[in-house]
Amino acid sequence: MISRDEALNIILQETPLGNVEEKYILDSLSRVLSEDIYSKDNLPPFSKSAMDGYAIKSEETAEALREAPIEFNITGIIKAGDFFEGELQKGEAIRIMTGAPLPKGADAVIQFEKVKIEGISLFVYDKVKADRNVIKRGEEINSGDLALAKGTVIRPFEIGLLASLGYSKIPVYRTPTVALIITGDELINIEEELYPGKIRNSNEYTLISLLKNAGLKPISFGLVKDNKNLIREKIEEALKVSDIVVTSGGASKGDYDFVEDVLVELGADIKFNSVAIKPGKPLTFAVVKDKLFFSLPGNPLAAINTFQEFIIPACDKFMGKKRCTDILPVILKDDYNFKKGKRMYIYVNIQKVNGVYYGYRIGWQSSSGLASVTEANGVVIVPEEKSCVKSGEILNGYFIFS
Amino acid sequence: MISRDEALNIILQETPLGNVEEKYILDSLSRVLSEDIYSKDNLPPFSKSAMDGYAIKSEETAEALREAPIEFNITGIIKAGDFFEGELQKGEAIRIMTGAPLPKGADAVIQFEKVKIEGISLFVYDKVKADRNVIKRGEEINSGDLALAKGTVIRPFEIGLLASLGYSKIPVYRTPTVALIITGDELINIEEELYPGKIRNSNEYTLISLLKNAGLKPISFGLVKDNKNLIREKIEEALKVSDIVVTSGGASKGDYDFVEDVLVELGADIKFNSVAIKPGKPLTFAVVKDKLFFSLPGNPLAAINTFQEFIIPACDKFMGKKRCTDILPVILKDDYNFKKGKRMYIYVNIQKVNGVYYGYRIGWQSSSGLASVTEANGVVIVPEEKSCVKSGEILNGYFIFS
Repeated sequence: MISRDEALNIILQETPLGNVEEKYILDSLSRVLSEDIYSKDNLPPFSKSAMDGYAIKSEETAEALREAPIEFNITGIIKAGDFFEGELQKGEAIRIMTGAPLPKGADAVIQFEKVKIEGISLFVYDKVKADRNVIKRGEEINSGDLALAKGTVIRPFEIGLLASLGYSKIPVYRTPTVALIITGDELINIEEELYPGKIRNSNEYTLISLLKNAGLKPISFGLVKDNKNLIREKIEEALKVSDIVVTSGGASKGDYDFVEDVLVELGADIKFNSVAIKPGKPLTFAVVKDKLFFSLPGNPLAAINTFQEFIIPACDKFMGKKRCTDILPVILKDDYNFKKGKRMYIYVNIQKVNGVYYGYRIGWQSSSGLASVTEANGVVIVPEEKSCVKSGEILNGYFIFS
Repeated sequence: MISRDEALNIILQETPLGNVEEKYILDSLSRVLSEDIYSKDNLPPFSKSAMDGYAIKSEETAEALREAPIEFNITGIIKAGDFFEGELQKGEAIRIMTGAPLPKGADAVIQFEKVKIEGISLFVYDKVKADRNVIKRGEEINSGDLALAKGTVIRPFEIGLLASLGYSKIPVYRTPTVALIITGDELINIEEELYPGKIRNSNEYTLISLLKNAGLKPISFGLVKDNKNLIREKIEEALKVSDIVVTSGGASKGDYDFVEDVLVELGADIKFNSVAIKPGKPLTFAVVKDKLFFSLPGNPLAAINTFQEFIIPACDKFMGKKRCTDILPVILKDDYNFKKGKRMYIYVNIQKVNGVYYGYRIGWQSSSGLASVTEANGVVIVPEEKSCVKSGEILNGYFIFS
């Protein structure tokens, strides 16, 4: 049995960075850039008006006064999308719309609301400074500038910027293909009525939804009977089509033995088969034919906990992503006792009152069922060396699935 | 111009709750249950062993001592998935696997590690309490119990529970169909080279990715020229196929006029056309033919800000979802000045040091570009009554897109 930190280190050590693929920007949400992206243009590509108003030469307003306005001749209009070929002359003003290019010769825009119009005459009552209401060419970014650095996670901001720079495709790290295999003679399909000795195959659904929740598309091989040959067949198939194979044992020791037997037959390098955490101790991690292999405990909450703690970080690393869970100080509202030596994950309902996070006990926490854990919105972590925690203690915690 | 709170209230007032649809559980992730779900079974459906060990009658171990173990006859084995028809007799023990049903007559399981085996004899050295290592029938949930309440957001926990209860389909609120229309003569397709007066149509991509990010699938009508008839045609088409229509104006006043003209022609109830926020003041909200209509500002960050502040909450309400942004105290690291009277959204880079959140200025914040905002991972809110904020001030903030 190794510690959670050792286990995670071993897993990350063995996890490769995924290959690079070109993706259409709208399909790259949450992916990670594999190269620096440079701007090929100046943005904005021209100095433009930030307001609806009149483009003028600012120096001409130097003496403008409420009692003695400066008069300009309105000689034209520039709409957004237009381009004015000529040059603004002394004494002239051009009506200009927000986003429209500033005409040559002009260096400021005065808003509609601040002027008076009489026929084609414009009266300006206040001094206008140079660059007033002008967004200058290249103010956002210049041609040749770094727009997005390698390693950037693509969010709506980045997609907008890439579109404005003319990038419709970008190089990103591939997502891992994760194959699921569920074993256990006690399992029946979820549509079936229960009969003696049987429970429904819920883990397949839980694991698929955990992968979906992480933006990944799993390949599920469904339910396999507790038969060594069948299990070996499925594992070999899964290894061929995926980067990561995840099995969920039935709950029995015998099931697990089959998976380990198969791993040995396939020449797997079994890194560990037990981690000092609860829920989730019986976790096996191996490298088989250059693929990552996880055998998860069959108990539903143990499967979820190990999945979140170990498989998500492996998937993140494959995609070039850094995790950024916001760890919060959570005050426990209940006492808990347990054997020391394992890192405990207490699933709780976190409520924030006056800026302080409190963690409330959920109904009945057992790794064998999920009914109570549906009340949880977070987890608090109890370090390995503790055998009890009391109401009022502050522990590290975080929100989950939010 | 109305306040942000008034604007949001008006929008939510007008937003209906979506209809109910039946969804396959794996397609219901992040949806909201529209009915209470009751258990039709006891879970577990039978008392079962939590360990690999031996099923016994606990009372027989009452006198067990290290020096004087109690001997049992091992009479069989029960694997997970099996069902034992007989009844355990006095003096008998049955080998039992984790998850296997406890045989009739037994009330406890003693682990492998705690016993000694000689042939078919089992020796127990310690008193075993009743119910030891037994997960009792119905311990997780009983037939007829409420499993998930109406209004529950479906997460992997809930999907696992539903699967274990035999629900493959559940009733959830529908997601809104959101139609996008982008207007502006200054816009060209993102693959095109820039030419005088033109910028690329980035807002369509930004808005589609904001919707995707919220788990929604938009219908995009793409780019429409600044022509009243064309705009009217597209808006009418969009109203037919969607619940919410979103237009992104070109940046010019003229564009916006066309949209407002069309709204008036269509008999729209225009609720407001300006909100006291920055970025995002020129936001129009209307109800047209029972559909919600938002005309967003054309400036990229203003479009994002209004989308997150107003359209996401409307979509959430439609789906029956309650928002739960974790509002954090963020200490500003820079000074900012602005005109008072608007709620300011300062996009910042939030860094947490020793449990304290600090908000750092990003390069160049303007609602007309997204280059700097790619450095932001959060927002801080400056209340309407302030005209400046200083480094060291604590403001409400939150993480975005994380």
